Amino acid sequence: MTDLDLNQILANIKPLDKTWLKKARERTVQLVMPTRALGRLHDMSERLCAINATLTPSTSKKAILIMAGDHGVTAEGVSAYPQEVTGAMVQTFLAGGAAINTLARQVGADVRVVDMGIIPELSPDTTNNARRLMVCKIAPGTANLATDPAMTRSQAENAVFTGFERASELFDAGLDLLGTGDMGIGNTTPSAAIGTLLTGTGLDEMVGRGTGVDDAGLELKKTTIKKGIEVNHPDPTDGLDVLAKVGGFEIGGIVGCILAGAYHRKPVVVDGFISTAGALVAQALCPIVTDYLFSGHCSAEAGHRAMLRHLKLEPILDLGMRLGEGTGGALAMGVLDAAVSVFKEVLTFDEAGVAGKKKNG
Amino acid sequence: MTDLDLNQILANIKPLDKTWLKKARERTVQLVMPTRALGRLHDMSERLCAINATLTPSTSKKAILIMAGDHGVTAEGVSAYPQEVTGAMVQTFLAGGAAINTLARQVGADVRVVDMGIIPELSPDTTNNARRLMVCKIAPGTANLATDPAMTRSQAENAVFTGFERASELFDAGLDLLGTGDMGIGNTTPSAAIGTLLTGTGLDEMVGRGTGVDDAGLELKKTTIKKGIEVNHPDPTDGLDVLAKVGGFEIGGIVGCILAGAYHRKPVVVDGFISTAGALVAQALCPIVTDYLFSGHCSAEAGHRAMLRHLKLEPILDLGMRLGEGTGGALAMGVLDAAVSVFKEVLTFDEAGVAGKKKNG
Repeated sequence: MTDLDLNQILANIKPLDKTWLKKARERTVQLVMPTRALGRLHDMSERLCAINATLTPSTSKKAILIMAGDHGVTAEGVSAYPQEVTGAMVQTFLAGGAAINTLARQVGADVRVVDMGIIPELSPDTTNNARRLMVCKIAPGTANLATDPAMTRSQAENAVFTGFERASELFDAGLDLLGTGDMGIGNTTPSAAIGTLLTGTGLDEMVGRGTGVDDAGLELKKTTIKKGIEVNHPDPTDGLDVLAKVGGFEIGGIVGCILAGAYHRKPVVVDGFISTAGALVAQALCPIVTDYLFSGHCSAEAGHRAMLRHLKLEPILDLGMRLGEGTGGALAMGVLDAAVSVFKEVLTFDEAGVAGKKKNG
Repeated sequence: MTDLDLNQILANIKPLDKTWLKKARERTVQLVMPTRALGRLHDMSERLCAINATLTPSTSKKAILIMAGDHGVTAEGVSAYPQEVTGAMVQTFLAGGAAINTLARQVGADVRVVDMGIIPELSPDTTNNARRLMVCKIAPGTANLATDPAMTRSQAENAVFTGFERASELFDAGLDLLGTGDMGIGNTTPSAAIGTLLTGTGLDEMVGRGTGVDDAGLELKKTTIKKGIEVNHPDPTDGLDVLAKVGGFEIGGIVGCILAGAYHRKPVVVDGFISTAGALVAQALCPIVTDYLFSGHCSAEAGHRAMLRHLKLEPILDLGMRLGEGTGGALAMGVLDAAVSVFKEVLTFDEAGVAGKKKNG
């Protein structure tokens, strides 16, 4: 991996092979049910066939990569929670006690945490479960995007590359399905900044309450993002510039995970608002990455629907969740499992000996 | 069970104990995440607490009861598939080769089929998996509702009671969660008839393409239902009269399953259009049954959303599915499992040693 640079990665991402979609659709209509009666489950299984270039795709080996980072912009008071919660939640993930641990367990997904740039120094040796933490700190927290670029361009590139490498290691070891997760107090602010810049959606629609700020906090978030854009002049046609100036290290890591899926021709399930901000940057770098993406759910966070519309991704679930961590993606993995099992296990009309549709039907 | 009659069953259904909802909500806010950040997952787990009157509800023992019946109204040409498909699909369920078998397997749910009134004589002895079929035939198919009452009032009562007994046996044996399923070529026609009568929704909104009829078939379904209502004069204030005159045996069985859940204070997940028609009849008999009901998904069948609106049930999934068999309910069981696991397993802020919300947040 180490001999690749970002341009080489991008140049090696190819669109889906549509012939596999066609082959998969031909099998779907033979299944013993009215034509395409399981709706979007068929779309999912067929796209998984095309991504993997096979009629027997697997989703059995799964992992959630939780990218964690701290945010200088918390100095503006944009979050309802204190900044030290980022590190404390990372410890909770390693202890297996957070919601993502429970939801990942249910679908048999491994949970790994990547320290992309949190403030505390957690060493794999001092945590409860060493092999679950990878320390790849770009820096201990970003700068305050309201006054300065969140990071340098080279840090942004480094963050993306780090995410790409961590995900590539998993794919190289046989992973079938990757879910992206995030932890970073304050990270709905950079995500909304990315969202407004890359989708052209106004701040009123894009900025939400995150972990639960009040009306004044919501206005503060909008003002902060406006300030950050005015101060930093991010170029909305340059995904990496947007990431550097108003993004976050964990968002950069998520961008890398998404590129890795497309590069290795493996599916990636993005979670909610923060992960989808990462998907927007990845799409800006390489529009065809969405061929390999599934949106796990639509978050309750205000701007998420506008992000998904821009990416032309239909969320699998819509349950008013807004936690992050990868929770929506993990829950959606169960639906992808179901889609694949139906595709592979259900008998055909012929095998079941069941009569098909009447001619005049 | 045999000493109960329908009125006694109805009289013994009690509303949820709201104090358990309150206790469950108190636990939810202690979980290490922003308040209620998992949205509807919390609503689900809290209602499961209240239904079971406990803070440690279980969804581990699950079953899908597929109620099967044939329909005289197929003589009108309302289905895209020939009538013998009902029996052939029952055989496929018993062989484990249908979509419901796959989806039930994924969530660890047992699949049982109840012959409520299919035309072929399948004996448990001649099927592949004897204990999975219960033969409780009310009659070999209903009469043609376009010209006659689909069944007598006593047959309707018998169908409901049979469903109640089959479900009660499972609950008595320790079942935690029941899903309703259906098989019956032609059964979107009686379901739409029930839907229009019990919700007051017009036929244009209520009647859909079922397994896939063309435009002429869709018009024929509407005309057939209109005829059936004119000929039979069902009383929309009397659920049992509606079931008898324009319903189906398997729909009656589903009504019984739903009453059994409420009677035994156990949750029932209803599937799509046909199961929800059963829920409408159950609600007409006993309005508080919806306390114990979850809607697994919103079907692609035209009138399903109107039915759910009437029942004030929000579907868990919305994936454009329209197969029946219990497939949407089975898939949603995975989400209910997740909701319960999060409620029981995730650490509290105190346990995790994570700081809570800032005062000004």
